[in-house]
Amino acid sequence: MSFRATILTLYPDMFPGHLGHSLSGKALERGQWSLDTVQIRDFAEDKHRTVDDTPAGGGAGMVLRADILAKAIDNASAGDDRPRLLMSPRGKPLTQERVRELADGPGAIIVCGRFEGVDQRVIDGRQLEEVSIGDYILSGGEPAALILLDAIVRILPGVMGNDLSGVHESFEGGLLEHPHYTRPPVFEGQEIPAVLTSGHHGDIAKWREAEAKRLTLERRPDLQRR
Amino acid sequence: MSFRATILTLYPDMFPGHLGHSLSGKALERGQWSLDTVQIRDFAEDKHRTVDDTPAGGGAGMVLRADILAKAIDNASAGDDRPRLLMSPRGKPLTQERVRELADGPGAIIVCGRFEGVDQRVIDGRQLEEVSIGDYILSGGEPAALILLDAIVRILPGVMGNDLSGVHESFEGGLLEHPHYTRPPVFEGQEIPAVLTSGHHGDIAKWREAEAKRLTLERRPDLQRR
Repeated sequence: MSFRATILTLYPDMFPGHLGHSLSGKALERGQWSLDTVQIRDFAEDKHRTVDDTPAGGGAGMVLRADILAKAIDNASAGDDRPRLLMSPRGKPLTQERVRELADGPGAIIVCGRFEGVDQRVIDGRQLEEVSIGDYILSGGEPAALILLDAIVRILPGVMGNDLSGVHESFEGGLLEHPHYTRPPVFEGQEIPAVLTSGHHGDIAKWREAEAKRLTLERRPDLQRR
Repeated sequence: MSFRATILTLYPDMFPGHLGHSLSGKALERGQWSLDTVQIRDFAEDKHRTVDDTPAGGGAGMVLRADILAKAIDNASAGDDRPRLLMSPRGKPLTQERVRELADGPGAIIVCGRFEGVDQRVIDGRQLEEVSIGDYILSGGEPAALILLDAIVRILPGVMGNDLSGVHESFEGGLLEHPHYTRPPVFEGQEIPAVLTSGHHGDIAKWREAEAKRLTLERRPDLQRR
């Protein structure tokens, strides 16, 4: 069974966005994954299709209503055991490990918050897993959902062909990836490190591991502490 | 002067992507920021427009050539002092602080890596600032560039109107944001916390601060240690 993504959003036009291009787009056409969007406004009850209201306690911005979002979620997840995610800067930071878990599963229902926030009672009541893609603020959950799906779709079986086999990637074993070089042998006076053109596979592997460790220690010692 | 983004990519069609919608799309039309793309292949020298080659030392994947990418960068940044960024999982994790700095500047030249990686000599030789949007692997630098731009454009003057004034956001003061509530007063038996409907502004502010601290301690103690 292929990975099924359902997106709850106020901006269905934003999808599939860049996922409609390149390898993810071809995989979508081939049915290796599917994407459907649900317009949250379709679950509003007034003629203006209002989905938000002012925050209790005052303050700027608007809050997505619990009752309307709950109806949209219930409709999308009827008879469904896919994980229910809410893209949110307050969430657990996304890791490659979580990406792999999700890619191994049946799909995901992804709620894209908008405005100031989402009423906490629907997050609790529908057990939404809050996922953050990083420590910065976006215009809404939609760009974050596109990133999550890009990371997932990339590792679905058959999507990248054989491209991934044997490739060492950043975050594997808690390490950043070693530097890369290719032709030409000299670029602006800089040569490719001699070991890489030595033909000694053992030495090359050792050099790459040492470089990955050096870079990680220099840039991301936190990865090793996890 | 408005923020100018120049994207070096093998997939210019991916832009402006979701940035062409909603508030960022309107701001683009109004000229509050600009986006142009450079096809890296235009700087290849053979008839197949080859931009990559096999990694020195062997292994899977392909590496973007230093000489070709350098020409594309030099062309895009002639007489230009915009920062030159390379979207890469090996980069420094993007923070809201860096987003603000970039938004306050003239723009950015953003290189989107593709394939296995980019020849290290062009990263060094052109002093590319490697930026990571999170600890997961994407199909390429393009989705990451769209995220970076979304975060930047959102805070450019005039883009969100008055939406941002007085809004407490996650990561302000190293804290995640407090929970939000709005009408209806009762949702599936759950009431809005009484303090928020008390009308006591001092108590509301105290409750929100305490909740932000509690959430941060629970979910992201690392934010407080920074």
